[in-house]
Amino acid sequence: MVNDFGESMLFLAIDGGGTKTEAVVADRGGRCLGRAVFGGSNPNFVGFEAAAHAVAAAVRGALEAASASPGRIAEAACCIPGMKKHREELSRLLEDELGLASVLYDSDMESTLFGALGAKEGIAVLAGTGSFAMGVNEHGDNFVVGGWGPIIGDPGSGYAVSASALRAAALAHEGRGPNTLISDKLKRHYGVTDIAQLKSVISADNTGSLTYLVREAACEGDGVAKKLIFEAGEQLAELAQAVIKRLDMDDARYKVVLTGGMTVFGDPLLSAFTASLRRECPSITIGTPFGPPSAGALMLAYRAAGVPWSDDLLSSLKMTLL
Amino acid sequence: MVNDFGESMLFLAIDGGGTKTEAVVADRGGRCLGRAVFGGSNPNFVGFEAAAHAVAAAVRGALEAASASPGRIAEAACCIPGMKKHREELSRLLEDELGLASVLYDSDMESTLFGALGAKEGIAVLAGTGSFAMGVNEHGDNFVVGGWGPIIGDPGSGYAVSASALRAAALAHEGRGPNTLISDKLKRHYGVTDIAQLKSVISADNTGSLTYLVREAACEGDGVAKKLIFEAGEQLAELAQAVIKRLDMDDARYKVVLTGGMTVFGDPLLSAFTASLRRECPSITIGTPFGPPSAGALMLAYRAAGVPWSDDLLSSLKMTLL
Repeated sequence: MVNDFGESMLFLAIDGGGTKTEAVVADRGGRCLGRAVFGGSNPNFVGFEAAAHAVAAAVRGALEAASASPGRIAEAACCIPGMKKHREELSRLLEDELGLASVLYDSDMESTLFGALGAKEGIAVLAGTGSFAMGVNEHGDNFVVGGWGPIIGDPGSGYAVSASALRAAALAHEGRGPNTLISDKLKRHYGVTDIAQLKSVISADNTGSLTYLVREAACEGDGVAKKLIFEAGEQLAELAQAVIKRLDMDDARYKVVLTGGMTVFGDPLLSAFTASLRRECPSITIGTPFGPPSAGALMLAYRAAGVPWSDDLLSSLKMTLL
Repeated sequence: MVNDFGESMLFLAIDGGGTKTEAVVADRGGRCLGRAVFGGSNPNFVGFEAAAHAVAAAVRGALEAASASPGRIAEAACCIPGMKKHREELSRLLEDELGLASVLYDSDMESTLFGALGAKEGIAVLAGTGSFAMGVNEHGDNFVVGGWGPIIGDPGSGYAVSASALRAAALAHEGRGPNTLISDKLKRHYGVTDIAQLKSVISADNTGSLTYLVREAACEGDGVAKKLIFEAGEQLAELAQAVIKRLDMDDARYKVVLTGGMTVFGDPLLSAFTASLRRECPSITIGTPFGPPSAGALMLAYRAAGVPWSDDLLSSLKMTLL
């Protein structure tokens, strides 16, 4: 597979979200040749202009790092939430500015799934600010559970744990729940002297990242914080269970992987997740993530070009990308 | 109590929220002489300028309806959420535009409480878009539970029931919960063909008023909808219980009143509320609301002027205002 100048063809993956954008250039064998990371590119959060700028900068950076010209890209996959509706505009810009011929706009849920699994089949639970579980079985059937966002609620997500931490402090303040170290930490975080003042200072913008505070409290032995982490693990297991049941995947061949920002909670979260999942789905294998969503985006680019996900390709990917 | 021209003095109440503003002019005996209703005046929702305009229009309307000059107002109480911080600006405007001398900026929670009770003591549970319970005992001690807003959550509120309705449809869609008539109603409401599309169409702005849809579904016999209403009643009872326990008010002398927009659910909500409350607080009296928050605001104006809340005054208020 070479271009008109006899150069070997390369593959490009673009993975983006609200806070960062990553571009990766790899060869046909799964070897990462260049990689660059820039700011957020989810157009729903940063607007299309800033998103497009981040994508172009990340792609230019990855091409430079790989010392590759855009003409060598055989296939490019772009997996950014909210970007599909801007696909024509972004493609035009990437062609005009970088000379990048054609880009595939794929699902960020699929890139997350395949990146986490490093395989065609299995179940991935993504627990970041939001949460969802997705699976693909041996027949290629797939199913998604969760990902409803903060209003309907994503149990076990960072946002849900943050809201639960606020709720725990509110209940303690009203004498309706146990005291918790979380209360003092929240007061410091928001610079207030009384939990009742939270009513006027919190908003959707400043409540998404209180998980660090729950982690601190749990490390200091706080029972309420430990319970929140335990419950998050159980709720994430429920997402996985729903997928496993729907796709009839309770079988040792299939791997379940928990990934995303919530995994910073470490063993307390993972053991609750594992114990709860084992109770309902005793045969399933619980594994560790293969790689980031950018690995999954690269896998989608290979798939689109008809390059099979061989063991060699996947192990090269793992060794050079991660 | 007369003014410099020998005219009897009057009392003014201003009650405002996100969607409406009411002004009431009454005499010293509790007889309502004039009343006017205008648009919303919560400055956090409509901005200060629109809020001030609504207040001035409502006050002018009530004075005109009472054929009274501003100089006859002995005491005015203004109970609007978020207005306390604008008190100087609003007072200046009311004095400049209407010649209204001095206005008391009081708590909208207190006006709601006293309006609902028509008494010095008791417990009121307000269940509107948000929810809270407030009580005052015979010693004058008061305590508030709830009112935390949509992020921390107000159980039993219109917002909470709306979010639960969305969640029920999401779970049914995923095969994780029972089917419900709510699903089709939500699809019609949002103009989508698939519940999964809710992920992209719902926002904090368009999810507050789905209760009518839950009510419809319950009337058509939907079990999920009935359960949501039952749970809301139980959760509102928990708010009341927490106040009753804190203030040691489980006594037949004290009345608990449930009020606000959620009461459109009628008996299914009220019976769940009553049954749940009776289990924990067997001695308390459960009553019906005395009047709207504007009645409470008027009571605060009387209190500020040293006019006692006699039975005569309260019964005049009830007869002429409600």
